[in-house]
Amino acid sequence: MQKFETLLEEFCEFLNNENLNFEPKELYKPISYTLDLGGKRIRPVMALLCCNFFGGDYKEAMNTAMGIEIFHNFTLLHDDIMDDAPIRRGKETVYKKWDSNIAILSGDTMFALAYQYITKTKIEHLKKTLEIFNKTAIEVCEGQQFDMNYETEENVSIEDYTKMIKLKTAVFLGASLKIGAIIGGASQKDVDNIYYFGEYLGMAFQLQDDFLDVFGDEEKFGKKTGGDIISNKKTYLYLKAFELAKGNDLETLKKHFIPNHSDNNKKVEKIKEAYLKLGVDKHSEEEINEYYQQAMAYLDKIECRKNNKSELKSLAGRLIRRDY
Amino acid sequence: MQKFETLLEEFCEFLNNENLNFEPKELYKPISYTLDLGGKRIRPVMALLCCNFFGGDYKEAMNTAMGIEIFHNFTLLHDDIMDDAPIRRGKETVYKKWDSNIAILSGDTMFALAYQYITKTKIEHLKKTLEIFNKTAIEVCEGQQFDMNYETEENVSIEDYTKMIKLKTAVFLGASLKIGAIIGGASQKDVDNIYYFGEYLGMAFQLQDDFLDVFGDEEKFGKKTGGDIISNKKTYLYLKAFELAKGNDLETLKKHFIPNHSDNNKKVEKIKEAYLKLGVDKHSEEEINEYYQQAMAYLDKIECRKNNKSELKSLAGRLIRRDY
Repeated sequence: MQKFETLLEEFCEFLNNENLNFEPKELYKPISYTLDLGGKRIRPVMALLCCNFFGGDYKEAMNTAMGIEIFHNFTLLHDDIMDDAPIRRGKETVYKKWDSNIAILSGDTMFALAYQYITKTKIEHLKKTLEIFNKTAIEVCEGQQFDMNYETEENVSIEDYTKMIKLKTAVFLGASLKIGAIIGGASQKDVDNIYYFGEYLGMAFQLQDDFLDVFGDEEKFGKKTGGDIISNKKTYLYLKAFELAKGNDLETLKKHFIPNHSDNNKKVEKIKEAYLKLGVDKHSEEEINEYYQQAMAYLDKIECRKNNKSELKSLAGRLIRRDY
Repeated sequence: MQKFETLLEEFCEFLNNENLNFEPKELYKPISYTLDLGGKRIRPVMALLCCNFFGGDYKEAMNTAMGIEIFHNFTLLHDDIMDDAPIRRGKETVYKKWDSNIAILSGDTMFALAYQYITKTKIEHLKKTLEIFNKTAIEVCEGQQFDMNYETEENVSIEDYTKMIKLKTAVFLGASLKIGAIIGGASQKDVDNIYYFGEYLGMAFQLQDDFLDVFGDEEKFGKKTGGDIISNKKTYLYLKAFELAKGNDLETLKKHFIPNHSDNNKKVEKIKEAYLKLGVDKHSEEEINEYYQQAMAYLDKIECRKNNKSELKSLAGRLIRRDY
């Protein structure tokens, strides 16, 4: 079975060889810029890996994988406008470097380009591939809307948050694997199993990302920690803390989770202290582990024996890094 | 053969019966609002009419037609953000009534919904339908970008303008007819003929729209005239006038085509006078007529004899109203 690294290399080569330098350049430059920013290319390579795992020729999934990656980058491009985010992967976001109108329109074009690649899927798999892709695209939009809603809503529950990250992040990981499985010729049962494997893995991944944003080693995590605390983001940690806190602890949370705190370093320090005191870190790790185990249970259910599952397992392990 | 009015009624009934009231309501309310604003539903009904014309069952094209209409409304929704347009069809635009983020995201969702409907196209026509739909979606974005570019570019030629309206408006009319023809089982030759019929008709339609924005009867045209003059829009009329004008006439154009004119009524009056003096109105009518004749020539080329062409001809005539 092909290794993740080999497929990653092949995918990157495919992507780099595609010509997207069309006219008007004001539209296509931001698209190339966005795709050249890099990123882990997890989703397209997952699709290729899955196609290969179920006995298919991964080269036949290359265009579809490209569609998946372009769609993912389109969502980031539009999210950055909505979230007012100036930096992505260490570089200026499109709406900052150019303007909002350019970001809206080049995003729209990427969405259409994604479908142009997806349409190259072999005819016998085309309808099924589109059905899951369309459904997921809609869910990702719904997830982003819930995320925006929660910024101003008072009463967000852990259940609400879970639903939001499922829609915004997890289903797309599941869908990428599922599309690879469809093209690889997997049985309907295995197509479903791999989808849930991906979805639960996606949940664990997002919760882990939230955890690392507070407790991660900045060097290993690759970005500054504390961002979610500073922006009062209602993550699992935030919501769990408010669920558990009473008396003085509750006062501490209320005192520091305010807009425009006068001392952000102190805010992060105090909230981290409160989280540790309340055991929110332990709860979060348990939650991550539970989703991870559920993902593994779906991987175990897969009946296909054409390849062993070690590559998918090691990928899952790498996604949910254990070295924080 | 089915009449346009019958198909329009059936399409509206189909659209009204579709349930798009999902959660989160912040995302779906603007979508229903946009689709409920009305509009002429020209493109979806053209698709149905064309399917029927070539001997297909138009009911089989209903979901695809719905996808076409949702896509069209998505482009309007995003264009209104980019163009800062507060009013559409007599009502507040989505970004004005809600905000830009809601407008971006509900637009994205409509794009995905459009593909969800298109994917319901009968499997034997799916790939061809998607290929033309994807291509057109990209071209419409390119057209909008050229349109935005021309707002600030100094040297826009009539050729540039023609290319822009072709991409932004004409190809989508051609594509709607073409998709109907594909589902209706037309020959490849006729699929191409009907596409160019629609494209040339679309060109005539857009040039006519520009003409009526200056010289139209406000009651018949259904909106206030002079808008393009006030906003210094580089239409065919504007560009032709600058091409022809010399001496005093050129001075008049330069004097009044300025940003923030102190007296817009006077501006419109003076520019109209200059247009008439330069014969720009006649040039424009000739241009419209030429595109119209080219459209008719492609209609004549159509070999299919299952139905007569009177309904398509009368539709073309109605689109390019002769009663201004």
